[in-house]
Amino acid sequence: MRKCFISFPILFITICSFAQQEDSIIVRRLADDIFKNGKAYDNLHYLCKNIGARLSGSANAQKAVETTARMLKEAGADTVYFQPCMVPHWVRGEKEQGIIQWGSNKKSLHVCALGMSIGTAKNGISAEIIEVANFDELKNAGTDKIKGKIVFFNYPMRPELVLGGYSDAVRYRREGPLEAAKLGAVAVMIRSVTHALDYNPHTGATEYDTIGVVKKIPAMACSTKDAEWLHQLLQKEKKVSLFMKMFCEQLPDVQSYNVVGEIKGSQIPVDIITVGGHLDSWDLAEGAHDDGTGVMQSVEVLRALKASGIKLKRTLHVVMFMNEENDARGADKYEELAAKNKEHHIFAIESDAGGFGVQAIEIAGTIAQKLKLRSWLPLFKPYGVYDMPDGGGGTDIEPLKKIGAVVSELDPNSQRYFDHHHSPIDIFEAVNKRELELGAISMAAIVYLVDKYGL
Amino acid sequence: MRKCFISFPILFITICSFAQQEDSIIVRRLADDIFKNGKAYDNLHYLCKNIGARLSGSANAQKAVETTARMLKEAGADTVYFQPCMVPHWVRGEKEQGIIQWGSNKKSLHVCALGMSIGTAKNGISAEIIEVANFDELKNAGTDKIKGKIVFFNYPMRPELVLGGYSDAVRYRREGPLEAAKLGAVAVMIRSVTHALDYNPHTGATEYDTIGVVKKIPAMACSTKDAEWLHQLLQKEKKVSLFMKMFCEQLPDVQSYNVVGEIKGSQIPVDIITVGGHLDSWDLAEGAHDDGTGVMQSVEVLRALKASGIKLKRTLHVVMFMNEENDARGADKYEELAAKNKEHHIFAIESDAGGFGVQAIEIAGTIAQKLKLRSWLPLFKPYGVYDMPDGGGGTDIEPLKKIGAVVSELDPNSQRYFDHHHSPIDIFEAVNKRELELGAISMAAIVYLVDKYGL
Repeated sequence: MRKCFISFPILFITICSFAQQEDSIIVRRLADDIFKNGKAYDNLHYLCKNIGARLSGSANAQKAVETTARMLKEAGADTVYFQPCMVPHWVRGEKEQGIIQWGSNKKSLHVCALGMSIGTAKNGISAEIIEVANFDELKNAGTDKIKGKIVFFNYPMRPELVLGGYSDAVRYRREGPLEAAKLGAVAVMIRSVTHALDYNPHTGATEYDTIGVVKKIPAMACSTKDAEWLHQLLQKEKKVSLFMKMFCEQLPDVQSYNVVGEIKGSQIPVDIITVGGHLDSWDLAEGAHDDGTGVMQSVEVLRALKASGIKLKRTLHVVMFMNEENDARGADKYEELAAKNKEHHIFAIESDAGGFGVQAIEIAGTIAQKLKLRSWLPLFKPYGVYDMPDGGGGTDIEPLKKIGAVVSELDPNSQRYFDHHHSPIDIFEAVNKRELELGAISMAAIVYLVDKYGL
Repeated sequence: MRKCFISFPILFITICSFAQQEDSIIVRRLADDIFKNGKAYDNLHYLCKNIGARLSGSANAQKAVETTARMLKEAGADTVYFQPCMVPHWVRGEKEQGIIQWGSNKKSLHVCALGMSIGTAKNGISAEIIEVANFDELKNAGTDKIKGKIVFFNYPMRPELVLGGYSDAVRYRREGPLEAAKLGAVAVMIRSVTHALDYNPHTGATEYDTIGVVKKIPAMACSTKDAEWLHQLLQKEKKVSLFMKMFCEQLPDVQSYNVVGEIKGSQIPVDIITVGGHLDSWDLAEGAHDDGTGVMQSVEVLRALKASGIKLKRTLHVVMFMNEENDARGADKYEELAAKNKEHHIFAIESDAGGFGVQAIEIAGTIAQKLKLRSWLPLFKPYGVYDMPDGGGGTDIEPLKKIGAVVSELDPNSQRYFDHHHSPIDIFEAVNKRELELGAISMAAIVYLVDKYGL
């Protein structure tokens, strides 16, 4: 009689293969439910059209807190609670003006104040405009040429950068006003941070000197088409001035909230898995892709897990983070409370790069943790996720690294994202239902797997 | 003295690694040029806005032939020539009507004739409408219930299919009229083949019995929102009629052309590499994604290779195929001439799945050829191409398999594609410049590599 035996490696592969087959069925079930019964698109429609822009500290931000708390309950959260945190309260006021003047000519540009900027004097300010291509040109110009002027940073998002163009160009929005003020500039106008060539100005936070040594000066962005036009004008005209009028101001901090929807783990409730996006948005549009899609995908993860009858072993937190855009106080608060309460956060995933088709999931963690995550990649491929490259979480979950969580982030195809980002066209109509849902499927699948196998 | 030697595998890996480094520099050069100096977006704008819809046989199709010949010359083709072929000439005529009538009520639907459909009688036709969910329901209803009626195929693109939803649902557009006519139906209306829930009707070719046994009946599509509404109405009302009026007709075939832009190979000119898309489009919009993007990406490949100073060893054909939409006569002609002239076609790539962000390139060929192609994948990853799965070429290059060519096709993220496909919203504004350019980069890169290394 011949003995029949299965070697250990074959047994191991067989077990793994059975497990992946079972997991693929569960992921398929989650996907089917999200595609057929998903609420993310309708919820996003509500958030965009019934609430709209929701900058931290605004009445709309508070409405968004209440609305998403309701949505989380409806999605099936065991409990929904608020985490109070103080947030900045910056307001834009009336529509800004930016008027170019040369000789006896005038032309009004498409502009917006940068977030957190101070306003101009009540009647506006006017000064000669000087264009610089980058920080080197600014420094070379020096105090002599910059003092008393308005600096125009005309640095485009570099077209040849497939990724990373935003991080490269956003330095001028963040640090431009500070650097120009050091040389005596009276104000700054930047070229909007976008690849698109159009008339939409893009806002976003600028950063002043926190210790108060360098003077705060008003800062605005003009549209990319205006920037191109102005560049041409400055080649021809010797003296060109900009008249700026901005009504924005920084009001006292107000209390706001993170919203947390929880499903308590049935076996290892101390282990916490976090899924989230940020609830606040800039004030020029509806915050559809930034980050209405992320919060609604997160709510959808909870709904789909519950609706698919998946009993989680570990505790799930679905978090609507407040104030990502202009100080990340919600993110800090979430981590602060987690540390204070000695919570055990094993994994967090965030969606804050637009609700476009996800092609990869960025992951951080130890080599072993990343290997484990990557071993699940075949389960994601049917839903368009091809890769799990090294990367971090976004702003809202990055602090959780301090308390040991593995953080990760959806990585959608981002070519369209910055066309909309922080601009008047970040609206619901720019979101595709199925792309939104595919993101939610990836997040739900990774939560299911981390919950089942740990990290 | 210790001997220094490099083993064969190490030498091989070292050579490969040097080669990939050099190739990555060339691909980077192509990409930089396409991002910075690319003409695809402007060319597409011209094609969409100055020509527009260009169905085979139309005056606009002829304009598109002449225009793209000019563009190919401007892009740097050595020679540009035409391949005459006879094409069908179907015309829509005046705007169609589809009016639902029940009791004393009427409601006009958003409809369009299916391509190649016959028109109705001059004064239209009216008949009771019967809804079927699929072919099985049609067959179960049988002649008794179908005879004299208008069949409404309400088969949606299945939401749970990430890919393949179109092939699954398009059977009702292609075969629905034939199958319904077999049972005595007088006309057909299908639910538009799209995931989107909106008021845009989607056209596309339907297929009659080629041997003339089964009667040809008129066929139209209604928008998905109209289909949903009608489905509800049919639950409540016993007798619902549809009045259809369509003016479309099939005119005699006319002569049209494929346009071929050629760069003669400097070392192995007999080897031909083909890059293409189709020049004709449906008549409801501008044929931006279907397939203006594909033809303009193809022209861009030629421009970028030339502008980057790459001297091709083999011959490049950039082909604007005519008549993909309603009989693929251009594709057949291209292959017919290639076979007749005993041309040696080694590789062909097509872009005809929308100008969205490319995530994969589908490839056919022998195992060795596919292994070779896949060994180049790391060179494509920086441009968002993660995979080279098995697949075919599209309609236009598939015939080249008969004469031994390896065929391949861009595989962009297709979730948005069918929202626009064959509908009034397939317009220039739906195309993102960088997504379009990334597709051209992938095509240019694969042409460069196939030219350099062969297959």
